[in-house]
Amino acid sequence: MVEKVKAEELALKQREISISEFFAKNRHLLGFDNPTRALLTAVKEAVDNSLDACEEARILPEIIIRIEELSEERFKVSIEDNGPGIVKEQIPRIFGKLLYGSRFHTIKMTRGQQGLGISAAGLYGQLTTGKPISILSKISSKRPAHFYEIIIDTQKNEPVITKEEVLEWKKEHGTRVEIQLLARYIKGDRSVDEYLKQTALANPHVRIIYKPPFGDGEITYERVKDLLPPEPKEIKPHPYGVELGNIIKMLQSSRARSLKSFLLGEFSRVSPRVASEICQKAALAENISPARLSPEQAEGLFNAINQVKIRAPEKDTLSPIGEEAILSTLKKMVKGDFYTASSRPVAVYRGNPFQIEVGLVYGIDGYPQDEFIILCRFANRVPLLYQQSACAITRAVIQVDWRNYGLQHPKDSLPIAPMLLMVHVGSVWVPFTSEAKEAIAHYPEIIKEIKLALQECGRRLSIFLHRRERAFYEAKRRSIFELYARELASSLSSLTGVKKQRIEKQLSLLARARTRFKGL
Amino acid sequence: MVEKVKAEELALKQREISISEFFAKNRHLLGFDNPTRALLTAVKEAVDNSLDACEEARILPEIIIRIEELSEERFKVSIEDNGPGIVKEQIPRIFGKLLYGSRFHTIKMTRGQQGLGISAAGLYGQLTTGKPISILSKISSKRPAHFYEIIIDTQKNEPVITKEEVLEWKKEHGTRVEIQLLARYIKGDRSVDEYLKQTALANPHVRIIYKPPFGDGEITYERVKDLLPPEPKEIKPHPYGVELGNIIKMLQSSRARSLKSFLLGEFSRVSPRVASEICQKAALAENISPARLSPEQAEGLFNAINQVKIRAPEKDTLSPIGEEAILSTLKKMVKGDFYTASSRPVAVYRGNPFQIEVGLVYGIDGYPQDEFIILCRFANRVPLLYQQSACAITRAVIQVDWRNYGLQHPKDSLPIAPMLLMVHVGSVWVPFTSEAKEAIAHYPEIIKEIKLALQECGRRLSIFLHRRERAFYEAKRRSIFELYARELASSLSSLTGVKKQRIEKQLSLLARARTRFKGL
Repeated sequence: MVEKVKAEELALKQREISISEFFAKNRHLLGFDNPTRALLTAVKEAVDNSLDACEEARILPEIIIRIEELSEERFKVSIEDNGPGIVKEQIPRIFGKLLYGSRFHTIKMTRGQQGLGISAAGLYGQLTTGKPISILSKISSKRPAHFYEIIIDTQKNEPVITKEEVLEWKKEHGTRVEIQLLARYIKGDRSVDEYLKQTALANPHVRIIYKPPFGDGEITYERVKDLLPPEPKEIKPHPYGVELGNIIKMLQSSRARSLKSFLLGEFSRVSPRVASEICQKAALAENISPARLSPEQAEGLFNAINQVKIRAPEKDTLSPIGEEAILSTLKKMVKGDFYTASSRPVAVYRGNPFQIEVGLVYGIDGYPQDEFIILCRFANRVPLLYQQSACAITRAVIQVDWRNYGLQHPKDSLPIAPMLLMVHVGSVWVPFTSEAKEAIAHYPEIIKEIKLALQECGRRLSIFLHRRERAFYEAKRRSIFELYARELASSLSSLTGVKKQRIEKQLSLLARARTRFKGL
Repeated sequence: MVEKVKAEELALKQREISISEFFAKNRHLLGFDNPTRALLTAVKEAVDNSLDACEEARILPEIIIRIEELSEERFKVSIEDNGPGIVKEQIPRIFGKLLYGSRFHTIKMTRGQQGLGISAAGLYGQLTTGKPISILSKISSKRPAHFYEIIIDTQKNEPVITKEEVLEWKKEHGTRVEIQLLARYIKGDRSVDEYLKQTALANPHVRIIYKPPFGDGEITYERVKDLLPPEPKEIKPHPYGVELGNIIKMLQSSRARSLKSFLLGEFSRVSPRVASEICQKAALAENISPARLSPEQAEGLFNAINQVKIRAPEKDTLSPIGEEAILSTLKKMVKGDFYTASSRPVAVYRGNPFQIEVGLVYGIDGYPQDEFIILCRFANRVPLLYQQSACAITRAVIQVDWRNYGLQHPKDSLPIAPMLLMVHVGSVWVPFTSEAKEAIAHYPEIIKEIKLALQECGRRLSIFLHRRERAFYEAKRRSIFELYARELASSLSSLTGVKKQRIEKQLSLLARARTRFKGL
């Protein structure tokens, strides 16, 4: 009877694990694995939320970031926006409950997707300092502001309000989040400073005011563009991107009366003709009730969908930065000799539309000739600072043969040049490799599109480099020619009797013509 | 009033996200990102569970794995064990609810930790084929077996039983899990075949019977050792590894009447003397009620803990494979010229004990001389097949300078040699870089310990290589000497009149002596 006892003994230990407990123990998964990175992640999650909220409310964002050192390794970060504010009732759950948010169930290009980030930052603060996250928010000039201090009950994954006040706040509307946390402040590639700089680069419509923890200074990134980017649209799922299990679930929970209206109503790009064709291919009546389909019939439907030709997803759902805005921002922020940008048309992976944009600056002032290029990666306008080598963007940059465009390019590495590349992947669903959202998974469709955009910029760069090189040699050749022209004119003058000045003038015209006809 | 409307409009979209919905959308995070990997992950999760259950019940494990192709890209995997079985009431939640398990809240060396794996495998099967996971389990020869088919309600993260039966099963006790899933079967480095082979390597006490999908054959890995590894012990948290936020939570939920008894009861390695010292350092009375501590006092306590010298965690909580078992298994499974193994003493990171074991085979039969070594990584006896380059184990192997031990070793890469290295990290809490549990995070303490074990094996290897090289040259020298010895003996014989045979014998003794005195 040993085995019976054992099974029953083991059964006693079985318990439900709350998502808060899970992520408290596994906080490295969310980007809180060490104090340096935790600081960046906390700022990033708050700024991403602010920008998403402002854009959804069609407000030109102005974000104020303050970082203050309280004691050794303990910092307070404060992120304030001029967004629409958050209604009182929602504040506790948005900041004090993991997996709670507005964007998870939508298919739309936004920075936040999962309802995890800001509450995870609060949870990290709570774990390392014992202090609550504090929120001040105001939704209208006619209403007071609400102030909350919130702790997460990790066992229940529910907010516990430790302080609640109604305050006057001179701002018309907006939200301010403050978190105390164990952190370390650094400069360099993966710093808050770099993150904010790159955020300004990919968001020309944002004004950022940044007060770093040390020094008196304040850094301001002014708007390059006083116009919000086009509003991204929420779309229904494309039939090609939906899995069998999801179709079964959709069928069961649908209120549609007939299979045909189900297909028309729940998916994008399904016309009445396409819906009929799917029903026919699946050998199902158009008027059958969706909830009554057997698992086998559902599978037949799934197979039929993938056999019918359906239009690609809508193209105008995304909100690209735009070539022009990329160029203006790059010119403002990086001093170089040559600038170019390229936007690809919208493409699709697994039914999700996505779009690639690339900006390039060559000949960066003061950048060493023998170093790897600077690669700035962005997903839905958010800079990605960690996990560069694991990212599809890096893979694509490495796969392009930059020697074709006149650069040094060692095998399996970035090219070597005084150059900056910015690559932006915008999508209704960015396939990150982890919840910390640092690297994009290697989907072949995405890598291919990035390469095409890079190659376009590369070709333009190579024309510039080629011209510059030729101009350089032409100038050199002409200066040598002109050196001898005077002497030659003297000799020719005494041989022919023509005036020396006239010959000199003719010779110099000749030299210029050679240059003008590009060496012919 | 635009802003008021906006905030209220946005509020309407806020919703709770169930952990099942989250992982259904983000299933690449759990190792189900493509059909090839999904097959491996599903098998791995089921086998890990079986082994954990058998060992907890102190049963020598026998696992039967069957993979069957049902149609193109659709497979059925079946994993059957002789474990203790699962009590009827627990079956639905263990297999039909994410984040439900017995091991999350314990500090103990086990394969599974999170209560995610097997239900995630079922969820993937459900998403891609619409079919339920099926479980057959029996806890005693005197009871019938229970059969269940289960679907996860992803919106609620709760099991839905679609079929339930009481069956006869000739097995005394055990569990069989079957999952239908979209999958692809491959051979090679990241295949199920390789995973099972490496599982046998790190688990000499397990018998594995494997029926691959194609071909008639069955592969059996017999036990190398008929003895279970020592039972790992569950421990209380070590004070150095607990964060401020956790201490606050522990204080609040503790039933201890005094701070001193709280410290004695909730942590490992706290003696009455240490407890008193902590209270004194924190300027807190020993008999104060834990629940009554203010946040500031809790922080004082936290700081005091980290100032007091506390013994390192217990050393006998882990269950290492053992040098001897590693050597026997390596000798049985890999044909080579030289074998060695090294176990490090137990070390600690963040209050968690861990232990490194390394096995090495050199001169693998038929392995090319100019290829990188084979690196087999293990965490708590589980083979890690993906994300090699992101793993602390790989980092440690690269950081060791293998040229010191006579191997070729290009910069920033694995060494080049006909060699296999197995590295096992055993810990009560393995810090994986993702839920898919494929790579170990770069904790300096862990990397350091791995390097020490590798260096130990490296030194032994270099002695072997050195001896072999010398033996080779000696043999060569002797054979040249012996070539001339006969002729020399002839000449000497005619010169001295001593018998030729005698001189030859003397010369050959001389040659051997030279060898014996190692070339002197």
